[in-house]
Amino acid sequence: MIPRERIVDTARRVYRSFGYSPIETPALEYLDILTGKGSEETDKQLYRFQDHGGRWVGLRFDLTIPLARYVAQHINELGTPFKRYHIGTVWRGEKPHRGRFREFAQCDFDTIGTLSPVADVETAVVIHDLLKNIGFDDFTIRLNNRQVLNGLLEQRGLLDRSTPILRALDKLAKIGADGVERELVDQAGLVASDAGQILALTTIDGAGDDVLLQVARLVRGNETGEAGIARLEYVLRNARAAGVAPARLKLDVSIARGLDYYTGTIYETYLDRMPGIGSVCSGGRYDNLAGTYTRHQLPGVGASLGLDRLLAALEELGMLENAATPAPVFIPFFDAARIDQYLALAARVRAAGIGVEVYPESKKLGQQLKYADRRGFRVALIMGEDEFADATCQVKDLATGNKTSVSLADNARQLMEHLNGLLAAGASTSI
Amino acid sequence: MIPRERIVDTARRVYRSFGYSPIETPALEYLDILTGKGSEETDKQLYRFQDHGGRWVGLRFDLTIPLARYVAQHINELGTPFKRYHIGTVWRGEKPHRGRFREFAQCDFDTIGTLSPVADVETAVVIHDLLKNIGFDDFTIRLNNRQVLNGLLEQRGLLDRSTPILRALDKLAKIGADGVERELVDQAGLVASDAGQILALTTIDGAGDDVLLQVARLVRGNETGEAGIARLEYVLRNARAAGVAPARLKLDVSIARGLDYYTGTIYETYLDRMPGIGSVCSGGRYDNLAGTYTRHQLPGVGASLGLDRLLAALEELGMLENAATPAPVFIPFFDAARIDQYLALAARVRAAGIGVEVYPESKKLGQQLKYADRRGFRVALIMGEDEFADATCQVKDLATGNKTSVSLADNARQLMEHLNGLLAAGASTSI
Repeated sequence: MIPRERIVDTARRVYRSFGYSPIETPALEYLDILTGKGSEETDKQLYRFQDHGGRWVGLRFDLTIPLARYVAQHINELGTPFKRYHIGTVWRGEKPHRGRFREFAQCDFDTIGTLSPVADVETAVVIHDLLKNIGFDDFTIRLNNRQVLNGLLEQRGLLDRSTPILRALDKLAKIGADGVERELVDQAGLVASDAGQILALTTIDGAGDDVLLQVARLVRGNETGEAGIARLEYVLRNARAAGVAPARLKLDVSIARGLDYYTGTIYETYLDRMPGIGSVCSGGRYDNLAGTYTRHQLPGVGASLGLDRLLAALEELGMLENAATPAPVFIPFFDAARIDQYLALAARVRAAGIGVEVYPESKKLGQQLKYADRRGFRVALIMGEDEFADATCQVKDLATGNKTSVSLADNARQLMEHLNGLLAAGASTSI
Repeated sequence: MIPRERIVDTARRVYRSFGYSPIETPALEYLDILTGKGSEETDKQLYRFQDHGGRWVGLRFDLTIPLARYVAQHINELGTPFKRYHIGTVWRGEKPHRGRFREFAQCDFDTIGTLSPVADVETAVVIHDLLKNIGFDDFTIRLNNRQVLNGLLEQRGLLDRSTPILRALDKLAKIGADGVERELVDQAGLVASDAGQILALTTIDGAGDDVLLQVARLVRGNETGEAGIARLEYVLRNARAAGVAPARLKLDVSIARGLDYYTGTIYETYLDRMPGIGSVCSGGRYDNLAGTYTRHQLPGVGASLGLDRLLAALEELGMLENAATPAPVFIPFFDAARIDQYLALAARVRAAGIGVEVYPESKKLGQQLKYADRRGFRVALIMGEDEFADATCQVKDLATGNKTSVSLADNARQLMEHLNGLLAAGASTSI
């Protein structure tokens, strides 16, 4: 929970820094709001019941449906563009397995009510800042635009077969290029040359502008395809202007997530050291968020941070702190008559912005330090008769065992400096 | 949601600074965990249903039952003392009315597994730091100890009538001293002199040590009562040592919350300027948290921050900011060809720790500023041809309309200083 909260805090801070506002909606929605919106699967997995007034309600299975309902209801007061983030619990009555739970958190951000490519750029910059601030340096945001593939299909008169084609492409990582090509011919009914060209398109990827040119050549002359290329170029160029290192952005025409939902820019984000874990932040642009609830046409763009995947990755990469306390400093209750002074010192350390716990019982020092060790405190401030006599404090680094005697004179200024130094030194390796 | 998140953030920061760890438990618990634990009322209000495996489950109605279940299950790995905070949603199928919702948040902290009075002191200090950091200066933490009243009743052979007596005392604010005295005689069956003495006890309150002495005199010679007095004295004295101003702490023998649940120190917290709203942070010490789930005796002490009441109070006191954006700075999209430079400036402002939103469409400036005004941005950074030509930026204070031209040279150092000055000036009046 400690690193989890730290990630969620970071996400909130990043979202806010771009002007996204927090929203919260009830976990329970009327059942007819939830059904028929996702897939047959989500309908079946819904936790549903009748409330005390006999109304059918259900627990939300994502944060997008509640956003659509909320925006449809309030768009006139909200105005556009409306930028919101939403961090909340969702429920799915499925079989739990590794990394999949019946109850889990989602962490979404969206900009509603604008077609501007600036919002697409910003979505990429937000993803970049999220990963950076959570503590990752090596990651790649893979970008695509649904219009590029649509353009290619349109050009070849294959637009009506886009669903089986996308379904085949989606399996690229799983079944390989040969497998996809076979499926394009067998399932989607393509002739071999079309299958080959589509496959060629989706296997082009890279960071350089030459890649964009290669893709552009394939859809040249098709309006939809060219619009897609133009927007990709715009997003890549301006995301760099906003500080995203070119190497962090890649064009990847193979990503085709959200078969019917996304209509423009698509985002996936991979950790370079753990590509196998899948995308840790995904999203895209859509034409019409709330079509089933309102006649307002509400386009938008956004993405969702994969909290559980990120935590799994941090753990596997050894980047998780192993502490059961969010406070770094521990004060043993050493001298039973001096509790007022331990509490006063704790208040002073806290006022300097450093978390500190006072052990509540005057047990043997060894027992208290064992507790401190198990909880993962980093520093103990030990004060017995000698220290009280000369107004000092023993600062014990619990990782190394090193002890330093520090004066408490002058409002414990020296102690605070010493603590800040010790804590800063250890903080860089974990989150 | 913006001030609400700020309060929750503050609560988290304060809890952590004392070494309380975050926990999260599922919203859904097996039904038999939840039933028969609160009152008949809470059983009736439970949202319950059968899950896909035919098991009866329910949505939790508080965070205490889940804590008890969690601690009973994990106490051997957790060890004691175990300090946790938990901020989460709870559900009650009751009639919603002003300030009461079917779905709402609780914000609890507890120290489990120690009888030490240091934990009682710390609970008072946490309450103090919570209120202070949320932005209140005028508040009073009212303390009582159930043992004091129990001692008095024991002394008079009335312990078996404690439930109707407490019920009568609980109505002091509602029906006044005369009403309570009548009820003590009529309902609890006390003789007039006993009723008078009990009432006298509960109407003593104040900050001075003389009050403690007055109460002590009434229970002198009774072991339970004297133990209660000793602990009250300990809590008052050491909370002051830990930095709580004496005027913020009051002894109030009339508070008797949690009829059967609390067994020692009791806490209620009132805003001096809004006593009518009731206690905004309440709690107490209990003997046995998880008696129905484990044979471990788990005493503890803790309290719960009343998020909804605090928000209502902040609103009524005019302490709520009226902004729909968590970012203070707005950059209008003025010159369509310069989006890269607007985005680059935004990234620089953000890197300085200041939130900023770039308007995504190059509409008329007036329209964009109208949006900024409605959202509650505080400063706009305006850059058109003139500003680009001489590398400056117009900083517009949106509250006063004042404009200042600021150089962007030297990494926009001057701009950051100017922004920090403007934003600090306005920040003190609201949270």
